[in-house]
Amino acid sequence: MTARSRSILDMNAFQGIAGGDALLARRLANFGAASVLFYDQPIELVRGRGQWLEAADGTSYLDFYNNVMSVGHCHPHVTAAITAQVSELTINSRYLHPKVETYLEQLKATLPVALSNAVLCCSGSEANDLAMRIAMKATNARGFIVTEAAYHGNTRAVTEISPASWTRGGCPEHVRIVAAPTVAAYGADPGAGFAAAIATASADLKAAGFGLAAFICDSILSSDGVHADPPGFLAMAADAARAAGGLCIADEVQPGFGRTGAGMWGFSRHGFVPDIVTIGKPMGNGYPIAGVVTRPELLAQFCEDTGYFNTFGANPVAAAAGLAVLEVIRDEGLIANAARRGDALLSALRDIAARSDRIAAIRGAGLFLGIEMSGPDAGVTVRCMTEAMRARRILIGAAGRFGETLKLRPPLSLTEEDAEFFLKGFAEALDGLPATQ
Amino acid sequence: MTARSRSILDMNAFQGIAGGDALLARRLANFGAASVLFYDQPIELVRGRGQWLEAADGTSYLDFYNNVMSVGHCHPHVTAAITAQVSELTINSRYLHPKVETYLEQLKATLPVALSNAVLCCSGSEANDLAMRIAMKATNARGFIVTEAAYHGNTRAVTEISPASWTRGGCPEHVRIVAAPTVAAYGADPGAGFAAAIATASADLKAAGFGLAAFICDSILSSDGVHADPPGFLAMAADAARAAGGLCIADEVQPGFGRTGAGMWGFSRHGFVPDIVTIGKPMGNGYPIAGVVTRPELLAQFCEDTGYFNTFGANPVAAAAGLAVLEVIRDEGLIANAARRGDALLSALRDIAARSDRIAAIRGAGLFLGIEMSGPDAGVTVRCMTEAMRARRILIGAAGRFGETLKLRPPLSLTEEDAEFFLKGFAEALDGLPATQ
Repeated sequence: MTARSRSILDMNAFQGIAGGDALLARRLANFGAASVLFYDQPIELVRGRGQWLEAADGTSYLDFYNNVMSVGHCHPHVTAAITAQVSELTINSRYLHPKVETYLEQLKATLPVALSNAVLCCSGSEANDLAMRIAMKATNARGFIVTEAAYHGNTRAVTEISPASWTRGGCPEHVRIVAAPTVAAYGADPGAGFAAAIATASADLKAAGFGLAAFICDSILSSDGVHADPPGFLAMAADAARAAGGLCIADEVQPGFGRTGAGMWGFSRHGFVPDIVTIGKPMGNGYPIAGVVTRPELLAQFCEDTGYFNTFGANPVAAAAGLAVLEVIRDEGLIANAARRGDALLSALRDIAARSDRIAAIRGAGLFLGIEMSGPDAGVTVRCMTEAMRARRILIGAAGRFGETLKLRPPLSLTEEDAEFFLKGFAEALDGLPATQ
Repeated sequence: MTARSRSILDMNAFQGIAGGDALLARRLANFGAASVLFYDQPIELVRGRGQWLEAADGTSYLDFYNNVMSVGHCHPHVTAAITAQVSELTINSRYLHPKVETYLEQLKATLPVALSNAVLCCSGSEANDLAMRIAMKATNARGFIVTEAAYHGNTRAVTEISPASWTRGGCPEHVRIVAAPTVAAYGADPGAGFAAAIATASADLKAAGFGLAAFICDSILSSDGVHADPPGFLAMAADAARAAGGLCIADEVQPGFGRTGAGMWGFSRHGFVPDIVTIGKPMGNGYPIAGVVTRPELLAQFCEDTGYFNTFGANPVAAAAGLAVLEVIRDEGLIANAARRGDALLSALRDIAARSDRIAAIRGAGLFLGIEMSGPDAGVTVRCMTEAMRARRILIGAAGRFGETLKLRPPLSLTEEDAEFFLKGFAEALDGLPATQ
């Protein structure tokens, strides 16, 4: 197994350096050092349907990882919407198009009423980059607080607040990190400890002359290892950030669009209203679309200093894809399905964990689950499990500061049969782990 | 006519604040202060075919502006490619897919052989953001030189090198601007003057402790007002930047993919090889795709410090769209068409200009043309012309530091009949201009 590169962003990508494969050789020649591939022997995929992906060698994989195609691979309703609109008109938003407005109205209907302005862009990175600047303008401050293994995207500004991407040079001077809310980090009341850490970090940023622009947090702390409980801890954290004069940005790029099973957005589990919400990944079920939703006065303040126009953002094809995703989530009852299947999986995994000393914790909400492996070699165990699951035709990923947590994010359309296939494979892979040293 | 906001990026967008229209009211409620619309009465578009756009009121407009749908609106070959792939598989690049590699190989075949690594992303902004960081790592410097009305995108880092977006606060301390290569700015030898200005700016950045990371330039200086001649000035500019230890980044987001009629890329007219090339807008004929192409060692140096993964970049649908665009450019001879139609338009416009004191200069290459209006009120004249052309069913835009230049970028599939329609409308609009004060 190749060494995991620390330059790889979401803790579970391996450099595919095995030779001999013609397609892999072409890939490495084209992508160069920026090639990031899963698995020791990367998989060539050819087809996606629902929860399943088909490889070039004919193998079918149950997708328990890729949360972009969140309503199911090649969902016919989304495909039809994209096909129809791309055949009719693609144009930028400096002209009017009713589909764009209909989409934004339906999107806003899922969000707190105060967040009534939206900016559409292409990627979660663009969304978080813009959100940072809105917060800096609103607060006249430059400091940011993030969780210690956070990943918020790949632009220069966003990389500076993404510890998961730092390999050299450490923490930028305008950034402070806080540990995820765990008993290990904060003792018996992790939520209170987390909020207190934000207060301390805010004071430190103020003393250093940066002030606090925002506390930005993925509302399920995905790359920190998936931390969903207790519901409410993010509200306390937001209060702490606001008490220090900062805003609270909920990064819903990963947990958004129904994945947590408790409403459309991860932050709603925590009972508070963020100042800015950033959205992306599953928003178009694969079509590149992302966005920032915020209060009108915050956006207006930002626009005093610079305009913002995004060539591809808010084009009618993006709106058509986004609208179709909202319709599928509603019409197929996918939030309820995520809750029901997620609860059943959590319960079944906790039963397995109770019988295995290799599992340290089971966490998550809805169909966003983390399985933290135990022991000092947990990162190695995770990599063994990831490969063992692949051998059992199940795709999963990894998360956590040390890559110690298995990350599970199947399509929201997951069936009971799929869940059983996963659980059987997981139990076998766990049983097949080599004994600890 | 409403006042042009300085916060608007490409010098020709007007805030649509006229009331009474239900769709416009929805738009303003959704977009808030970030709403950027063309024309005093914005246009609702419903359909695009080839060079033509159809509005909701049934009016057909000849599109002489929107350079994203560069091979023609809803080109059937591109539409078919997107439809087929979106029905089969959308997946990220951590798995292998042959279409992605085929696309990159065909793309690289159009570029200098030294630039053999590519990173695909979603927008020109993401591409330029990444290019800046590659240059900073390679040079261990932080300074950038840009042209005085440049626009390179909308991320935080890229906005800092985009004078067209600055409304308050002026030039960041790590940035130096140089005037476009004109006789007005530099005298009889604008190319030499431009290069000398870069040398001076480099020395200044060095003295200020920033050093020179890169000189970055749109290879047709689009937002500076379209400056194509004399061919070769960019080679001298690149030499000056390299002599100061910096790299040269060719921003081909606007002029790339055959638009200048002299090969696939704007820089090839100037006879030099950039260190980094950024591409975007017309790359997928409307599908969000962009990229950075560079030498492997520059990318490898960057990846020592941080990985780069882009969720939507290099997905097979993006590759299918990009591949189809390359095929259409080749199969329909669009570069030759851009050269032929562009030469004819230049010639006809120069004939008109010779008879009109309202035109200061005609510039451009291929189907990227600029018409600089004369006099101290040239910006007002440009706005009058833009509205007058709209009344004649022709969409154009504006560019230049003071919005003094009409910007023309019709689809590369422009026909002789289209060109005649444009020229007739242009002559009428010019004749209809109110007399100067």
